[in-house]
Amino acid sequence: MAYIEFLDTTLRDGAQAVGISFSVKDMQSVFKILDEFGIDIIEGGDPASNPKDEEFFKETRSSRLAAFGATHRKDTTADKDENIKKLIQAGTDTVVIFGKSSEKQATEILGISKEENLKLISSTVSYLVSKKKRVIFDAEHFFDSFLTDEKYALTCLNAAADAGADTLVLCDTNGGTMPDTVFRIVKTVTEKFSSLRIGIHAHNDCGMAVANSVMAAQAGATHVQGTFLGFGERCGNANLSTIIANLSLKGHAGCRCHLEQLTSAAKSIAEIANLVLPSHMPYVGNAAFSHKAGMHVDAVIKESDSFEHIDPRKVGNDTHLILSEFSGKSAIIAKLSLLFPDLDKSNPKVQEILNRVKELENEGYQFEGAEASFILMAEKIMRDFNSPFALENYSISTSSSGEDMASVSIRVGNSVSTGTCTGNGPVNALDKALRKALAVYYPSLNDVQLIDYKVRVVDSTKATGADVRVLITSKDKSSAWTTIGVSTDIIRASFNALADSFEYILTR
Amino acid sequence: MAYIEFLDTTLRDGAQAVGISFSVKDMQSVFKILDEFGIDIIEGGDPASNPKDEEFFKETRSSRLAAFGATHRKDTTADKDENIKKLIQAGTDTVVIFGKSSEKQATEILGISKEENLKLISSTVSYLVSKKKRVIFDAEHFFDSFLTDEKYALTCLNAAADAGADTLVLCDTNGGTMPDTVFRIVKTVTEKFSSLRIGIHAHNDCGMAVANSVMAAQAGATHVQGTFLGFGERCGNANLSTIIANLSLKGHAGCRCHLEQLTSAAKSIAEIANLVLPSHMPYVGNAAFSHKAGMHVDAVIKESDSFEHIDPRKVGNDTHLILSEFSGKSAIIAKLSLLFPDLDKSNPKVQEILNRVKELENEGYQFEGAEASFILMAEKIMRDFNSPFALENYSISTSSSGEDMASVSIRVGNSVSTGTCTGNGPVNALDKALRKALAVYYPSLNDVQLIDYKVRVVDSTKATGADVRVLITSKDKSSAWTTIGVSTDIIRASFNALADSFEYILTR
Repeated sequence: MAYIEFLDTTLRDGAQAVGISFSVKDMQSVFKILDEFGIDIIEGGDPASNPKDEEFFKETRSSRLAAFGATHRKDTTADKDENIKKLIQAGTDTVVIFGKSSEKQATEILGISKEENLKLISSTVSYLVSKKKRVIFDAEHFFDSFLTDEKYALTCLNAAADAGADTLVLCDTNGGTMPDTVFRIVKTVTEKFSSLRIGIHAHNDCGMAVANSVMAAQAGATHVQGTFLGFGERCGNANLSTIIANLSLKGHAGCRCHLEQLTSAAKSIAEIANLVLPSHMPYVGNAAFSHKAGMHVDAVIKESDSFEHIDPRKVGNDTHLILSEFSGKSAIIAKLSLLFPDLDKSNPKVQEILNRVKELENEGYQFEGAEASFILMAEKIMRDFNSPFALENYSISTSSSGEDMASVSIRVGNSVSTGTCTGNGPVNALDKALRKALAVYYPSLNDVQLIDYKVRVVDSTKATGADVRVLITSKDKSSAWTTIGVSTDIIRASFNALADSFEYILTR
Repeated sequence: MAYIEFLDTTLRDGAQAVGISFSVKDMQSVFKILDEFGIDIIEGGDPASNPKDEEFFKETRSSRLAAFGATHRKDTTADKDENIKKLIQAGTDTVVIFGKSSEKQATEILGISKEENLKLISSTVSYLVSKKKRVIFDAEHFFDSFLTDEKYALTCLNAAADAGADTLVLCDTNGGTMPDTVFRIVKTVTEKFSSLRIGIHAHNDCGMAVANSVMAAQAGATHVQGTFLGFGERCGNANLSTIIANLSLKGHAGCRCHLEQLTSAAKSIAEIANLVLPSHMPYVGNAAFSHKAGMHVDAVIKESDSFEHIDPRKVGNDTHLILSEFSGKSAIIAKLSLLFPDLDKSNPKVQEILNRVKELENEGYQFEGAEASFILMAEKIMRDFNSPFALENYSISTSSSGEDMASVSIRVGNSVSTGTCTGNGPVNALDKALRKALAVYYPSLNDVQLIDYKVRVVDSTKATGADVRVLITSKDKSSAWTTIGVSTDIIRASFNALADSFEYILTR
């Protein structure tokens, strides 16, 4: 297979996803990550649709950047259309223009005839080409249009090609097309337009966006559009991270991406989008190479390709052995191998730890993401463990007038220390008060920062009386670690996770 | 295409997913939903692997139920193997047996020769057939095995077929196979074993599980295994809800499923699994037919197939217009059409509501899932709105000894009422105190129940000082509604969502 050009539209189509909203600064951060990873073209948005995209283009200059917009309005010409002006002002080398490719869409949505639609495509593309832009033409609803009226769909592509578009992109706008149909239609188009670059833009409404993109590449397409994490309206766009890994590792396609940065790029973009990276996402998810069943864990330790289709390090990910009711002693031993290298299955403490994991998971704990809490729990079973501090008591008061006050007393040896603080909400006040009480004995905790705080209602149908699971990630100068607390009381769950966090680092 | 038989393994392979743990009661509920929806075979678990699965089989009798297990151990015979005994004791008509189909897996994982592996398959299957079981043979790692040593892989299938297995299932155990390869191999197998039922069991490590299952059916497979929501180890199993919809609506395959119950079955199973149904899941997700961009909303109102590949009612889902910074006035008007049927775009209040949505979304609100809060906000802009009560103040105290106490004062007209309650955690205490204060004036609130309480940290990297978004779903005898509160203080966010919930229902 040939060299494939990738266009990422996270900043444009991805921003259409329910729950996503990028600031200009966010957009710049995402652009930088995609650029460094090696994406060929990064669609920055539609400068005519909102002031944020316009500002982003003003502040970003790069040959990889593309602006996106529609064919000009029916009641004007390309050179007079305000939106086209903004598209040119965006100052990118490349412009992506979308247009209709079916008679029905032209008449019912734009209110023009099918002939007028051809002129709209032609005049928009040729005007932008005259302004020295590389023009990529996105043919909206192409597959549906082709199936309804093959001749007209191809005529629309012809109009764009004759006007100077250098890439024709076939869009499965509604995401309803099956892979065999995509293959057949892309093959027809690549054969007909053999001198141009043919692209695919797939949506995931049938769970087929990745497959359709890969099948299109197999049928001769050499330009693939998607969003890095598959975010997008409805069921999402084609997931570019999955497609890039599939084509590079399984399809023998060439690309300029740094595959070993795939996972870190995905995590960074998810963080900027303020979304949790789905743990089951192919290649980059936390669970993508995780093994939970006892038998699977045993098999992976024996022979990693028993349950791993690639070496996870190729995409910057890693094998994870999951602690759970399913995991056997092997997983416990593997997890503790650094601290207790001689541990083996015959040691009764291993069974004791496994039993405790099962008990706590029953109460709503999940050690999958909270290794530091697991290590502390296991150490307390494995050996005489001197806790660096013990809780005496805490109390919190909060009210509608905004006075959040917490007081925490801890004991270290025979002496008791109390910290009292106000805060931004009761949990924040508690965090500050606990640090203050501990700082007397452990000034090193001043280097510890909380970098992530997650709350999950374990059984949300129990409403406000349900268990709440709090996960806290902390870091100091050299490492980061995650701890967990569970309670019906969010304050108590937070306190337990906080206390574990400090106890963990003080005993390293 | 032919009639397709579907096997759901949510209760077995699905339970391997990170974060999922079913009780016996949960398993029974999932079984009932799948059975009523029309799944042909429901895999209930491995009775030999854990006591929970064993108990489930003891308490469930159905011709649709199947038990799952491995070929017998190498050091014994089928009739003496304890696991095979448990498999038979499970009392199902159908048994799914998995076995190795590659020399490497046989020698390195089981520690036996490739000839011994063939005997293991043969003796296990023929013993179960002699016990009057329908035997489905799952050939583990089949596609990888076929590519390494086609002849041996086919010989393993032969061993199962000759011993009386009635269905041969080709497993893409590591999920690493591309759709074109799946098509080619399934075609070879269906041609070679034309008198037997051939099946596919796909994993999603390349984002291809749905595509591989559909391609397999196109190549002649008539048995498809998956989990209803795609849950499963690593990147998940093939998503059966997506596959069933694809094959029924696009592949013209026959099945006995009640497609119009697809969405409600998916939601119920997600609830039992205690997982949020991913909103972007094809066909069944909340966002699957949601429209956010202003232009898309306009187009969908004009012509629903502009951005919908099927009529969502066919799968029991519905079109949703999303309120967000992207949505235009059309979405606002559509949302308010029941309350204000004459509203049109020229009304300046529409712009005012849109502006307020944008402002609040900037602060971390999301009205997408919280329509009741949106309606309240819009009504306050649209007309003179008499709030049924006003907050005077609340205060809360909580401590490590477990005394959670809340006091809430509200004003109705000129009179003030105070409720004071203890609770299971501070939020629960607050909920009870607010109800108590309101009950004096509004005894109808006794019928209102909180049925769902969700917490999301909006920017988790700000740690304990971050904004928290609380969503509360309430119901009375005739309806259910969802409200939202946002604050850095989880207590305040919860209070706001609670207050909105009561205000909403009191003003209907």
